[in-house]
Amino acid sequence: MDDHLTPSYDRLVQALRQLPGIGPLSAGRIAFRLMAEEGHGQAKELAALLQEASGKIHRCPVCNTLCEGDLCRVCADASRESDKVCVVESPADQAVIERSLSYRGKYFVLGGRISPLEDQGPSQLGFHLLMKRIEDPAVRELILATSYTAQGDATAHYLAMAAAQRRPELRITRLARGVPFGVELEYTDVATVARAMADRASAVREQGGHR
Amino acid sequence: MDDHLTPSYDRLVQALRQLPGIGPLSAGRIAFRLMAEEGHGQAKELAALLQEASGKIHRCPVCNTLCEGDLCRVCADASRESDKVCVVESPADQAVIERSLSYRGKYFVLGGRISPLEDQGPSQLGFHLLMKRIEDPAVRELILATSYTAQGDATAHYLAMAAAQRRPELRITRLARGVPFGVELEYTDVATVARAMADRASAVREQGGHR
Repeated sequence: MDDHLTPSYDRLVQALRQLPGIGPLSAGRIAFRLMAEEGHGQAKELAALLQEASGKIHRCPVCNTLCEGDLCRVCADASRESDKVCVVESPADQAVIERSLSYRGKYFVLGGRISPLEDQGPSQLGFHLLMKRIEDPAVRELILATSYTAQGDATAHYLAMAAAQRRPELRITRLARGVPFGVELEYTDVATVARAMADRASAVREQGGHR
Repeated sequence: MDDHLTPSYDRLVQALRQLPGIGPLSAGRIAFRLMAEEGHGQAKELAALLQEASGKIHRCPVCNTLCEGDLCRVCADASRESDKVCVVESPADQAVIERSLSYRGKYFVLGGRISPLEDQGPSQLGFHLLMKRIEDPAVRELILATSYTAQGDATAHYLAMAAAQRRPELRITRLARGVPFGVELEYTDVATVARAMADRASAVREQGGHR
């Protein structure tokens, strides 16, 4: 909405529109809410937090996630298994895997996926850093945990090819696809069912025997 | 999503979540995008714009919209008809009326509508300022252009009652309801059609004769 209230208001709306997921309508609403407040406490606090975070936060030089110190918490944790590197798209995806308590290895955070339309290619996603990382012979498995979308699959495919070329002996895996927990088969999409059928496993193997 | 990357990152996500229309997922995505950028140029620019706008922008003391100088552009414009005050919910609504070129009077911008659930009542919406304004005998018509929603109607009803009590001779109007332009009757909702039928007007009156 071109409200054109004041020059500094218009500049603020334009800047808010650049943020992901914020359209022109939301940008106007946010700017109005912030500027309508007596004393502008919320706007000033947000400005201060942006400044503070900009001064403190940088990329972890090992796993590419955001951190404040020399290394991020996971990379600095000597108890994590350093022979495995799990590639995720975002810190949110990493957080889900951490909450699942199923993985004690290290990570690499792409910060996105290959998406030519959004101008995200190998150089934006730190692929060179990841390739350097897997050259370390201590790394024996690369787990590609990008999402199961067209772009996530393309990213995984690209990374698998590039990694196999550099380290032919590296184990390269992808998270299993199958029927999710707590879901009735009747309501599961056929592609998932087909994949789960193809990848069916023995129902009598020892619990936790394969990890 | 509770990524818990770093303390300053978490504080930034919390602050972004307070903005209208921003959920936890969007807040995390925005914070990540801003902090993932090399040099944090976008974050620093946004912080500077928030600071600049906070320093310059305040409420227009006459119409309650946002402005930078003593008065807003419309209130400062001596060519506007000062016997009419049109009450709108937001600067965006005011902008629509301005673009329609159908009104040359003044405005009053509530900055919202009565909404107990969002903690917006008469005091948040500057009703006292509006009541003071209509006490000026030069004001002869109050046009209530709040939206045609339950909350907008409630706001208009409340304002109409309060204004009629203070200035019984004041003309208090509401924008006409009816079938919008460019819409086929077949696709118009029945409430709109019923209202348009009840308010039907002579089809042979002079064009522009009633303004």
